[in-house]
Amino acid sequence: MFHSDLVVRAAYVVTCDDAMTVIEKGAIVVRDGRIAAVGPEEDIPVGDAELIEARRRILMPGLINMHCHAGDSLFRGLVENLPLEPWLQTVWTAERAILNPETCRLGAELGLAELLLSGVTTVMDMFWFPEETVRAAKALGMRIATGGIFFDPSGMDGRLADRRLADAAAFFDAAEDDPFVFPGCLPHGTYTVSPEHLRNAARLSRARGGFWCTHAAETRAEQATVTERYGRRVIGHLADLDLLGPDVVLAHCVHLDEDEVELLAASGTHVVHNPMSNLKLASGFAPVPALLDSGVNVTLGTDGAISGNDLDMWLAMRLAATLHKATTGNAAAVTTGQALAMATRNGARALKAEDRLGSIEVGKQADFILVDIDRLHAAPLFDPITHLVYSAGRGDVTDVFVAGRPVVAAGRLLTADVDALVSAAMALRPTIAASIGPTA
Amino acid sequence: MFHSDLVVRAAYVVTCDDAMTVIEKGAIVVRDGRIAAVGPEEDIPVGDAELIEARRRILMPGLINMHCHAGDSLFRGLVENLPLEPWLQTVWTAERAILNPETCRLGAELGLAELLLSGVTTVMDMFWFPEETVRAAKALGMRIATGGIFFDPSGMDGRLADRRLADAAAFFDAAEDDPFVFPGCLPHGTYTVSPEHLRNAARLSRARGGFWCTHAAETRAEQATVTERYGRRVIGHLADLDLLGPDVVLAHCVHLDEDEVELLAASGTHVVHNPMSNLKLASGFAPVPALLDSGVNVTLGTDGAISGNDLDMWLAMRLAATLHKATTGNAAAVTTGQALAMATRNGARALKAEDRLGSIEVGKQADFILVDIDRLHAAPLFDPITHLVYSAGRGDVTDVFVAGRPVVAAGRLLTADVDALVSAAMALRPTIAASIGPTA
Repeated sequence: MFHSDLVVRAAYVVTCDDAMTVIEKGAIVVRDGRIAAVGPEEDIPVGDAELIEARRRILMPGLINMHCHAGDSLFRGLVENLPLEPWLQTVWTAERAILNPETCRLGAELGLAELLLSGVTTVMDMFWFPEETVRAAKALGMRIATGGIFFDPSGMDGRLADRRLADAAAFFDAAEDDPFVFPGCLPHGTYTVSPEHLRNAARLSRARGGFWCTHAAETRAEQATVTERYGRRVIGHLADLDLLGPDVVLAHCVHLDEDEVELLAASGTHVVHNPMSNLKLASGFAPVPALLDSGVNVTLGTDGAISGNDLDMWLAMRLAATLHKATTGNAAAVTTGQALAMATRNGARALKAEDRLGSIEVGKQADFILVDIDRLHAAPLFDPITHLVYSAGRGDVTDVFVAGRPVVAAGRLLTADVDALVSAAMALRPTIAASIGPTA
Repeated sequence: MFHSDLVVRAAYVVTCDDAMTVIEKGAIVVRDGRIAAVGPEEDIPVGDAELIEARRRILMPGLINMHCHAGDSLFRGLVENLPLEPWLQTVWTAERAILNPETCRLGAELGLAELLLSGVTTVMDMFWFPEETVRAAKALGMRIATGGIFFDPSGMDGRLADRRLADAAAFFDAAEDDPFVFPGCLPHGTYTVSPEHLRNAARLSRARGGFWCTHAAETRAEQATVTERYGRRVIGHLADLDLLGPDVVLAHCVHLDEDEVELLAASGTHVVHNPMSNLKLASGFAPVPALLDSGVNVTLGTDGAISGNDLDMWLAMRLAATLHKATTGNAAAVTTGQALAMATRNGARALKAEDRLGSIEVGKQADFILVDIDRLHAAPLFDPITHLVYSAGRGDVTDVFVAGRPVVAAGRLLTADVDALVSAAMALRPTIAASIGPTA
């Protein structure tokens, strides 16, 4: 099928390969959903292939958002300017009142569509009714890592803890052999899930070859609770339970001591840095330079839209590259290349998909995006990686491809009706506002 | 001239008045460049006026960026991933090689056009050849606060210190009675300008009723230098020289002790918070909650595009509302209303223009913007102020008016050719890159 080839030429191909190679006036060939060739334009003959001339664009891998609760987009900005505890209680009141399979599907569509439009092609998501998240992702044409939630109190989905393991196993069955779904188990945290249930989840995810993800060391209060309850800090507690390792993805890791950093590094555990959430929820500053120095694979996430209040991976990249300069006093802490790797190849590694995703290399899936470089806020351009991390933004993404299929073109989402999604979210607004009572 | 009236209806009018009043389904009347009426839509008859129906937009005041070096946009991203000192030396090498009236004009146009397109209608700018900055601002149709720079070493403009006072006086003469220009004196800092020259600048600005602005307490190194040289910390040194007061605008104020906060508060000195610059340059975290608590008027700035690397006041607002939650551990530190005030009415107050700018109130200049609320990253909307601070961004601004004149419409700049500006900046790129030698 020679005619199915697609050639894309770009001002720069930012490969995000191991050496962070950038090819000026580069091109790629897409064949059967994969990248068949990458190189300087003059080395890539067009022949009979379809040609996209993107000579004023950067071509780069789709972004990988490693921590999200897309469904929470329904509650974006519902209540603010409160201390953490009363804020969280109010959000939970709304979640309990509103969430069901239908609203979770709408929330997932809203959040995932926002992400896809901004160039995110793969998302790890933790939310109630994860099968609805999968449906939303597949309808949009993007990749999703999710699975059964474990939560010992009665969940927002009304299900009890003893039902969780069976639900999670069923999720694995449904996801089997789907190249767009990365199934796993997602216990909420060490302070909300018992050691037994944490281990049950890991037994399942390991038996099925999936990932295991939880919130860990996000706040001081969590560290205090876990230390008091188990006599160990959070990461040590996980180590005691054999819950660290290359199949484990820990979101946040803000409050770590040196021993905990060492445990993460030695075990090959992956960390998701969520800088905007950590700021807004007053959690603090994750020790990203120390994690990187110790060799931990640090990935990047947006967290949910109640903690952000949007799902902006470009902002996450920029904060990852700047926050830690201020906390350490070192203007060279976390380079632009490191921040870009966090948002791309490091995520693929955490998903055990570095052979398929995360960079523009021959044989990988053709998940790539085009970023307009002719923007007032980003000209002139001296270095494409600096440009992407420090100046570019969600609004500069013009085209998104997943497995070679165009899903965003000229800044428009091809796989969902944006106006309808926004209208549906706005239509639910009075019900959501009423759910938290007259203070809304 | 009844026909010259313009009525604009919006989903919400976010007035940024003293009480931060929000009017749902609101409208304004614009007459002779001023706001002639504000209220609920039903109280604002249209009559023969021109009508703009912006029912899916928020109408709010134009943003006021209180610290910028617009011309530095030419060097955006030229060199990165270095510690502060070698980075700065490299940037200065490029500035010395490149800057002249013509390139300063181009840099100012580039930076100011970026700001205007994002909804910033007034900018305080500190750069070489400030008369070129004024020309750029006036051509774009925006308001500019700037004036003579004072710098004891030979400046990037090649002029010596003894020429500065005459230049600054000439700037006041040229700006006289121009409602679009706020003239002042802008010494670079207490570590680069002698006490005598600082005071000369203040004598001039006070005699002419202008502002006086300098960088202050930005870094630890600066505090150490000034303390060693003058036996007083930076703010105390300024107090000793009678250089605090309601005509004084201090950029940064990152490293302050309690006495310095008290000196700022007692004197009515205005502070410009530049959160992105303070992060990227590893300066640290300004004590914004303490400044607000003590009653200091805190305004907001982007700093220049080598410190950012863009001029994004929306990002500055979001960081102002979130960074200090993480530094204090208090999720209620710096409310969304406080952050929005910093970007609007507080800037007007620092310019002594609170009777003319900074809010949507009858009698004020019709400097206002429209923000699209139907965006995936910002739906649903529960509270317009939360929406503006936590979810909206530069790309959501669709229309900008200055003194009632449309300068941005449907997301397009009406007063400059964006493509030509970007091309001109890119055309200068090889010369700029060559100016710092083969390391570029």
